[in-house]
Amino acid sequence: MARKPVQKSVQTASETPANDPKHAVRATRSAGRRMRSSLLDGASRLFKERGLAGTSISDIAAAADAFPSQITYYFRTKEALFVEAACRDMLYVAREAEQAALKAGTPRDYTRALVESVTATDSVAFFAEALTLTRRRQDLAPLVERTIERLHGEGLRAYTGQIERHGWKTLRDPDATSRRFWAVAIGVMVEGYAMGRSPEELCREMLRVLGEQATAKPASDNARLRLVGERDASTSSASEGETSS
Amino acid sequence: MARKPVQKSVQTASETPANDPKHAVRATRSAGRRMRSSLLDGASRLFKERGLAGTSISDIAAAADAFPSQITYYFRTKEALFVEAACRDMLYVAREAEQAALKAGTPRDYTRALVESVTATDSVAFFAEALTLTRRRQDLAPLVERTIERLHGEGLRAYTGQIERHGWKTLRDPDATSRRFWAVAIGVMVEGYAMGRSPEELCREMLRVLGEQATAKPASDNARLRLVGERDASTSSASEGETSS
Repeated sequence: MARKPVQKSVQTASETPANDPKHAVRATRSAGRRMRSSLLDGASRLFKERGLAGTSISDIAAAADAFPSQITYYFRTKEALFVEAACRDMLYVAREAEQAALKAGTPRDYTRALVESVTATDSVAFFAEALTLTRRRQDLAPLVERTIERLHGEGLRAYTGQIERHGWKTLRDPDATSRRFWAVAIGVMVEGYAMGRSPEELCREMLRVLGEQATAKPASDNARLRLVGERDASTSSASEGETSS
Repeated sequence: MARKPVQKSVQTASETPANDPKHAVRATRSAGRRMRSSLLDGASRLFKERGLAGTSISDIAAAADAFPSQITYYFRTKEALFVEAACRDMLYVAREAEQAALKAGTPRDYTRALVESVTATDSVAFFAEALTLTRRRQDLAPLVERTIERLHGEGLRAYTGQIERHGWKTLRDPDATSRRFWAVAIGVMVEGYAMGRSPEELCREMLRVLGEQATAKPASDNARLRLVGERDASTSSASEGETSS
């Protein structure tokens, strides 16, 4: 139990005992790693159900069949555990969404599969709650920052791969497309959860707000698309109205 | 002080004593209304600085030169006051953004003015915190719901007015454009505040994620724009690839 565990899927904050690379190989199969993961699982379930204020360290320990002191050993504080559980969940949900969207044959099906997958769980709302908490707890910001970078990086990679594989044309900068996807997801979920919206309503609203991301147009149409499609307002230097004739 | 006050700019939850229309005219100039407003001002400032947990009812009472019992009389709970102060701030910020954007001569300047105005304050982050809180306090959802409806309604009205006045062409459904603006604002701010981003960074990121909303193209280009521009993924029935030749 005293061995330093390593979590494979999400990097942990540097002050936790989990981040020492010397122990990585040995720790992979260790009881410590299993305990850490089981604490994150229990925490995620309870936090999503009852929120931060409604969940105590001893509730989580009981759910994971552990002692409260193990939580403080691995995570230090309830807030740090909250943020780490939410970051892990967010990356899981992103991976599941990518998997679900792989089969899509058209840009519209691709977007729909992503959105359906993301709105089917409350992981984005959980992550948004962790973001809100982190605003007041800047000691937890490094983990959040790494999670967001990874989210955007993996989103960009998945999106670029998908449009290349199918020969689709993206309607704008792929990086901005991926960032927009997650910003819209967070915005729509935070709004929707406050109003008690169902997953179906969240899915409809997110599709509506997101709009089209790519088209299945042939390459010959590329130039016109690039001219009249959306551009990045902050980087494009062409002024409006120049493309019309 | 015992007169029922009415707040003109933001409707209050129906269970507060503030919602009785019979008293509306009389209450407009009443001391009660001023006290209520002053409590909201103090609450807004303190909550933004210190968050919900870091602010007590007696702090707010002291800031407004009032008694704690006046807060419970007007707002019942600290949480209800938090949500009402955040909703009021959000509508103020939306109005200021509209005002700031009125002078814009091009679609790009319009979007930039809106985004600069919205990212210059922490009101959107405050509102997002209220949304997160409301998820666990569904008794506060009606006020949030009215605020969001009003935000979208006024955003739609302002955007439609602006594009008509200038003869701009919207790249997509104006209602979806307005909803997207606020969803992106909430998503970008919640992310950015967690990472301690500056207003300038928030502004750049929001412009980047938002992309272009309208073009200054002449009317003759309308048909082509409609064909190749973004469509609403959830309502358009045309399939991809049909518009290319």
